[in-house]
Amino acid sequence: MTPLPSAFSERLSTRFGQRFSAAEAIRAQHAGAGMHLPALPPQAVVMAESTDEIVFAVRTCAEFGVPIIPFGAGTSLECHVGAPRGGLCIDVSGMKRVLRVDEADQDCTVEAGVTRVALNEHLRHTGLFFPVDPGADATLGGMASTRASGTTTLRYGGMRENVLGLTVVTPDGAIVRTARRARKSAAGYDLTHLFVGAEGTLGVIADVTLRLFPVPEATSAAVCSFSGADGAVNSVIQAVQMGLPLARAEFLDDAAMRAVNATFQTTYAVADTLFVEFHGAADDVSKQAEQFGALAASNGGGSFQWAIEAEARSQLWRARHHAGLAAAASRPGARPWSTDVCVPISRLAECVTQTKAELARTPFPAVVLGHIGDGNFHCVLLINAEDKSEVEAAARFNDALVARALAMDGTCTGEHGIGLGKRESLRAELGDAVGLMVKIKHALDPTGIMNPEKILA
Amino acid sequence: MTPLPSAFSERLSTRFGQRFSAAEAIRAQHAGAGMHLPALPPQAVVMAESTDEIVFAVRTCAEFGVPIIPFGAGTSLECHVGAPRGGLCIDVSGMKRVLRVDEADQDCTVEAGVTRVALNEHLRHTGLFFPVDPGADATLGGMASTRASGTTTLRYGGMRENVLGLTVVTPDGAIVRTARRARKSAAGYDLTHLFVGAEGTLGVIADVTLRLFPVPEATSAAVCSFSGADGAVNSVIQAVQMGLPLARAEFLDDAAMRAVNATFQTTYAVADTLFVEFHGAADDVSKQAEQFGALAASNGGGSFQWAIEAEARSQLWRARHHAGLAAAASRPGARPWSTDVCVPISRLAECVTQTKAELARTPFPAVVLGHIGDGNFHCVLLINAEDKSEVEAAARFNDALVARALAMDGTCTGEHGIGLGKRESLRAELGDAVGLMVKIKHALDPTGIMNPEKILA
Repeated sequence: MTPLPSAFSERLSTRFGQRFSAAEAIRAQHAGAGMHLPALPPQAVVMAESTDEIVFAVRTCAEFGVPIIPFGAGTSLECHVGAPRGGLCIDVSGMKRVLRVDEADQDCTVEAGVTRVALNEHLRHTGLFFPVDPGADATLGGMASTRASGTTTLRYGGMRENVLGLTVVTPDGAIVRTARRARKSAAGYDLTHLFVGAEGTLGVIADVTLRLFPVPEATSAAVCSFSGADGAVNSVIQAVQMGLPLARAEFLDDAAMRAVNATFQTTYAVADTLFVEFHGAADDVSKQAEQFGALAASNGGGSFQWAIEAEARSQLWRARHHAGLAAAASRPGARPWSTDVCVPISRLAECVTQTKAELARTPFPAVVLGHIGDGNFHCVLLINAEDKSEVEAAARFNDALVARALAMDGTCTGEHGIGLGKRESLRAELGDAVGLMVKIKHALDPTGIMNPEKILA
Repeated sequence: MTPLPSAFSERLSTRFGQRFSAAEAIRAQHAGAGMHLPALPPQAVVMAESTDEIVFAVRTCAEFGVPIIPFGAGTSLECHVGAPRGGLCIDVSGMKRVLRVDEADQDCTVEAGVTRVALNEHLRHTGLFFPVDPGADATLGGMASTRASGTTTLRYGGMRENVLGLTVVTPDGAIVRTARRARKSAAGYDLTHLFVGAEGTLGVIADVTLRLFPVPEATSAAVCSFSGADGAVNSVIQAVQMGLPLARAEFLDDAAMRAVNATFQTTYAVADTLFVEFHGAADDVSKQAEQFGALAASNGGGSFQWAIEAEARSQLWRARHHAGLAAAASRPGARPWSTDVCVPISRLAECVTQTKAELARTPFPAVVLGHIGDGNFHCVLLINAEDKSEVEAAARFNDALVARALAMDGTCTGEHGIGLGKRESLRAELGDAVGLMVKIKHALDPTGIMNPEKILA
């Protein structure tokens, strides 16, 4: 790897002072390691605190031909922030201002480094909230960049549905706003959606305009156990067909429930389990809860447990949100690897059942977690990274899982993205369409400095 | 304009027989005239009946350098299907097959020429429907191409939200599928959204995969009159803030109501009026209706009239859907011109009020209609096309209206698109972002044969 030119480092050092660093510890914090992918530290890091600072850094990189890696909270899972060709990491986590909130329009604009938890904290007294919840407290710029979603996508949509516009710094350092603030528009190519999910390969997101939603008057949640994925999936399909407005519908398999009980001292049945939630007017959520209970029972559900009070709900969702962590705790020292396929919901039960049969034959333990209403599920594989046969078996398992999802007309990634980890899967999934992506990449980033090698090899 | 090469016409004639034509009457039916824009007939028309036929026509055009103009029902409003450089119109209205419907997944795939009414007819016995309703019985390929929306967008979204994937024939004749059938995906650039709204400038849409929704158990609709736009807009803003799930919220001004009464012999109050609709369980919609009635009353609404029965609702929505027609009938011989701005809803009352003040000074009559929950409204200007001063005044009015919407951070087009009519407005709205669109156009259509001059001058 060519060292960074000294004139390059001097220019950034002069502008950013201590906020520009090539120290090994700083670089290591921005290396994107995790799951099955290695750490790939950048050659230097700059902490940008404004759009103009991003522009300065991008223009300097463009002048010297130095790769750029945008960085938010670093919680992405497919090495989106690794630096395979070195270069400068532009860390926007210091861009923490909520620029505006409009209660009548139910929208807001935030700098890219604001996290979803910080935004909801900021919104606390407005009666509004931002629903997209990928689990980690990611930055909203990063969530837009990876097209994140999560547990509430069934009701509110993910970043694809909830980003109304973006300010982006392009590879030549221009500031572009992708859309005005109207709720809908038919004005030209949909650049907002092009940048949502582009994983920083087309530009650096500086701010994000987001839809907000009224905090529901009431929330009810429930846990229900089943003797297999079928009953859980069918309950959700039927609920959606009836028009029951599920806000969340999450699946945890028996292994996940065992891990949850062990970690949180809960006493849930160790069985394939559905966690659901309804949001709405108080009367409505009770009625919806009842209707759903009847549906679940008719699909073989037992041990139905409602949680209306905030504390009971919070215990329930803590179990769901930390199920991956609980699983990891069940095999100390193991490295978790979270897979991420999504299939049409009509194929979900079959896909989960086949996948669990496959897991029974792998040399490592695993749990299955799913955003079941969307057809998206994760296997958290608990790998002994020192054992080459486990590492190889995990890779084979993931390849087979992706192939299974594609054979069901699903996708290799519901919400984690492509990064460095799934570039071959993307080709398998979309074929010639990837050629169009390459053309777009070359057109908007002709020198290839924006987050090189991500998405497209 | 260069005549079509005879070898070109012979090749198409051999393949398509009578379905290829350069007859003047056929060309005139595909000329895209309407509103303020002139007829621009193509040099020939081919009626494609399959994806392979589109490929054949596109490859032939590519070989001979002949422009391509994709055509569905021809109901677009900004001369999207005009042929300023001549060329071949590829009419897909004969591609009428519903390729699949999946009730569990609540989605379907249709050929580009299926219209929204035909699709809903096909779905009649499934308990599902496709909600996007732009008024005209457009083809679903055309609706995707122009990013159409309409009266139910507030609840269900427009084409932007409801197209899950597309099969597109690219300018070099390749067949590309933009997405698999999973409900969500984070796999690479969002090509689906790039083609939705591209107005045929990047490829020809061959088929469309769409979200479907359960037919609501019950529907209630209502009409309520106000003494100005403010009360109507504020009622809708407050309803959305309360989480009332409005399915439709449409505004008609006093002039529109006068025209409706005259045309349909109805006796609605001649006042600024709100039409709303709720979809859901029977108990819910009655309750929501009551809550909305109280809100409207507190915002100065009077003359509140509920319609629960299908017949009463159908009368009400006929009035709304044909209000433009009714307006046209009020000035026989006039040429209607429908404007299409969309602003953040917090600015809507102000925008409508200023616009109506402006209309009071124009030499032609006009009515105002709006998808009020989205901030999108149309002025239907009734122009004597023979009177140059009226034509010029209409153009000035539209320019001022677009400028007003942009000053409020709105868009020059909520749902009609850019076509040939709004290319300068697009530049005013998005500035440097249009440069990115030009780069994408050049990358995906380097010879510029796909629907030339649309969106980008």
